[in-house]
Amino acid sequence: MSNRQNCDSGSLSPLELYERVTTQGDKVRSLKAAEAPKDEIDTAVKLLLSLKLMYKATTGQDYKAGSPPTDFTPINNAPAITEDDDFVDPWTVQTSSAKGVDYDKLIVRFGSSKIDKELISRIERVTGQKPHHFLRRGIFFSHRDMNQILDAYENKKPFYLYTGRGPSSEALHVGHLIPFIFTKWLQEVFDIPLVIQLTDDEKYLWKDLTVEKAYEYAIENAKDIIACGFDINKTFIFSDLDYLGMSPGFYKNIVKIQKHVTFNQVKGIFGFTDSDCIGKISFPAIQAAPSFSSTFPQIFKGKEDIQCLIPCAIDQDPYFRMTRDVAPRLGYPKPALLHSVFFPALQGAQTKMSASDPNSSIFLTDTPKQIKTKINKHAFSGGKDTIEEHRKYGGNCDVDVSYMYLTFFLEDDDKLEQLKQAYTSGALLTGELKKALIETLQPLIAAHQERRKQVTNEMVKQFMTPRKLAFEF
Amino acid sequence: MSNRQNCDSGSLSPLELYERVTTQGDKVRSLKAAEAPKDEIDTAVKLLLSLKLMYKATTGQDYKAGSPPTDFTPINNAPAITEDDDFVDPWTVQTSSAKGVDYDKLIVRFGSSKIDKELISRIERVTGQKPHHFLRRGIFFSHRDMNQILDAYENKKPFYLYTGRGPSSEALHVGHLIPFIFTKWLQEVFDIPLVIQLTDDEKYLWKDLTVEKAYEYAIENAKDIIACGFDINKTFIFSDLDYLGMSPGFYKNIVKIQKHVTFNQVKGIFGFTDSDCIGKISFPAIQAAPSFSSTFPQIFKGKEDIQCLIPCAIDQDPYFRMTRDVAPRLGYPKPALLHSVFFPALQGAQTKMSASDPNSSIFLTDTPKQIKTKINKHAFSGGKDTIEEHRKYGGNCDVDVSYMYLTFFLEDDDKLEQLKQAYTSGALLTGELKKALIETLQPLIAAHQERRKQVTNEMVKQFMTPRKLAFEF
Repeated sequence: MSNRQNCDSGSLSPLELYERVTTQGDKVRSLKAAEAPKDEIDTAVKLLLSLKLMYKATTGQDYKAGSPPTDFTPINNAPAITEDDDFVDPWTVQTSSAKGVDYDKLIVRFGSSKIDKELISRIERVTGQKPHHFLRRGIFFSHRDMNQILDAYENKKPFYLYTGRGPSSEALHVGHLIPFIFTKWLQEVFDIPLVIQLTDDEKYLWKDLTVEKAYEYAIENAKDIIACGFDINKTFIFSDLDYLGMSPGFYKNIVKIQKHVTFNQVKGIFGFTDSDCIGKISFPAIQAAPSFSSTFPQIFKGKEDIQCLIPCAIDQDPYFRMTRDVAPRLGYPKPALLHSVFFPALQGAQTKMSASDPNSSIFLTDTPKQIKTKINKHAFSGGKDTIEEHRKYGGNCDVDVSYMYLTFFLEDDDKLEQLKQAYTSGALLTGELKKALIETLQPLIAAHQERRKQVTNEMVKQFMTPRKLAFEF
Repeated sequence: MSNRQNCDSGSLSPLELYERVTTQGDKVRSLKAAEAPKDEIDTAVKLLLSLKLMYKATTGQDYKAGSPPTDFTPINNAPAITEDDDFVDPWTVQTSSAKGVDYDKLIVRFGSSKIDKELISRIERVTGQKPHHFLRRGIFFSHRDMNQILDAYENKKPFYLYTGRGPSSEALHVGHLIPFIFTKWLQEVFDIPLVIQLTDDEKYLWKDLTVEKAYEYAIENAKDIIACGFDINKTFIFSDLDYLGMSPGFYKNIVKIQKHVTFNQVKGIFGFTDSDCIGKISFPAIQAAPSFSSTFPQIFKGKEDIQCLIPCAIDQDPYFRMTRDVAPRLGYPKPALLHSVFFPALQGAQTKMSASDPNSSIFLTDTPKQIKTKINKHAFSGGKDTIEEHRKYGGNCDVDVSYMYLTFFLEDDDKLEQLKQAYTSGALLTGELKKALIETLQPLIAAHQERRKQVTNEMVKQFMTPRKLAFEF
């Protein structure tokens, strides 16, 4: 996952963008020459980088000083930089708003549906379970065809869950847990099989990693995933590098998808250019294939018509828009989706938490002390500058990262509401809100670490062995 | 394999090509309107199609009447249409010369080396065997690094053979046998393992075939290949659709290759365009991967440094130029190659024999009568128009397809030379030369059919099971 800062440049022409990059470059140079404050330089550099990335996304070429764009390849329908300020694709999430991405606009742009009160009530009615706080609090906020899935459940028709992770590092951060926590809840509520893809091949292709290292990360990540408490009898975890060489169905589906998607299409959806390697260009089919039940003949006995439900962060939606487009042409059902918001970086909701920036992340391996220090030092506060002002005007939960994290991890609705009221009114100071977060996260992460210690190599092997799951089709 | 007629249009600009297509289209229409002879219309249509293909190869766009090219993507280093008249890529072989492709020019263009007398003598010296008539007669005429292979053989260093076939139809034609006949000889002479790739995935991607049908063709083709007499203890035949899901090494090598080849490169080498599906774009890595011994851990015990020797028709060379380019960056040895000429169509050496055109082909399933009829009816003759003229001036072996086929299948050097002398002098008539070919081919094909009948499903299964071969590494 690379970081890309956004700005209001989405609708500029290549030449206008070129000029903005040039001007911003000059500005950075003069700030540095004038020994301006570090913060100011950093902000200017970030904008410069973001402009350069946007220039590349628009023209398909790297910015070169002194060479204005003449012969650029326009990218149609490329990773959405629209009239609003948000940039979202599978590798980058960026917005200029401290409140984070405007998810209502994203729903319109992506053409998905909002998870509204009616749908949440239906989930409660159909399953007889209190909806997960990720649903109640709008953390999973968007869907595709969730009503179809509920129809299937009511009619006792089978379906299965599919989620995944790109193993780009050994340690997961707390944000990585979101889809897994929710998927575990779905697995329990619906009592259905789950497949979890570890895209070590993707990470090999995108990162400066060996095949062996990417696979090693996949195994390490599998341990953290298993530690979330998935049912070993109903869950199959697989590394692409591994499972592709073990499955009679996976490659067949990949090649079927690859026949039905052109370079023009992946260029439009993912912003690939002619300089990208053919591995990246064909990879979307590999993330798409587990959406089809025939990819897992050992689980589904060769049945091709079992629908799939994919809980994931909304930046992964482009893969599944493509998948849903291809599915009917292959005679397969379209996967349904549940989309989550991004997990904000400690520094603020303008970007998502990224494992490649340690200061933006709280890792599942962090000690209680590290957790405390990171939150106290880096968590962006919506509080006022002085205690007096804060007491008078109150803090702003809409931009306060500690409060945002509490919405993810503090399950108690009443306590969360109390904290919000107290913080907004000024009764609760920033340090006290941070303390509440620290006291919520420390035991959660310690418990995760404890469970992870219990994960043996034997268990990993069992989870990752293609096999029949405890479910009848 | 599609057919593409060539013409002297290799160096035309997109606009000039556009105009040639338009003019030729008009000509076809007026010929049809005037109810011109079928042959004349066919020839004009073929030229039209070839011009359209060339237009697409040059501009990356389909020809559209009324829309001259304005914004085309030039394809650098695209499938070679050079100053001479030959067009050669993995899907199309076309020349304007009845003698066939100019192979000396092809060697220069592809940058390979000629198999000269010195190399043939060295093969004889090193192996202690009389060189195969395919070598003696220049049917295998070009190579890359064959001297390295002979060095290895002399130094008792291991190497292995790799060849393949794209299973686009159930029945093979006699031309398909050429690489297999020669590979069998190499296997016997060097006593080494052989892997044979059946690219059913490629045929699924390129043709209007289902995955199931392509796999079925692969199995049927495997029977014909086995009937060539390969050593079951030293030969592994695999379908891509099958083996990719069974091998821990194949996909890893594919993804490694795919990381090191860009779309720009495959566009240059294979002429792909933005409208091609991502399956085609990434396929070259799949044909490349068996060049590396780690693709077959069951055979080579995980060793990555065992060199590969690939006998193939020269139109497959682009795949292996790409492979040789990538190999050092992966730390693998470059594969060596032995290139054969194309097997000419019955109608003449301007194109190669193609299974999709039954009239151009003698199939391995043809009856003696069919063989006789096809040769008598379709085999292009280098004889003169009347018996009197023929007796006086003699026939021309350089363009006579029956004579060319005899160089492939009549092993007896003396008899071949006698036929040539007699035909060239006019003593032997076209019908008599055809008779000699019929009498050579009929028993060969009958014997093949007999051997194919002996190929059981059990044998196919055994050849296609990943396993240790009878060879120590």
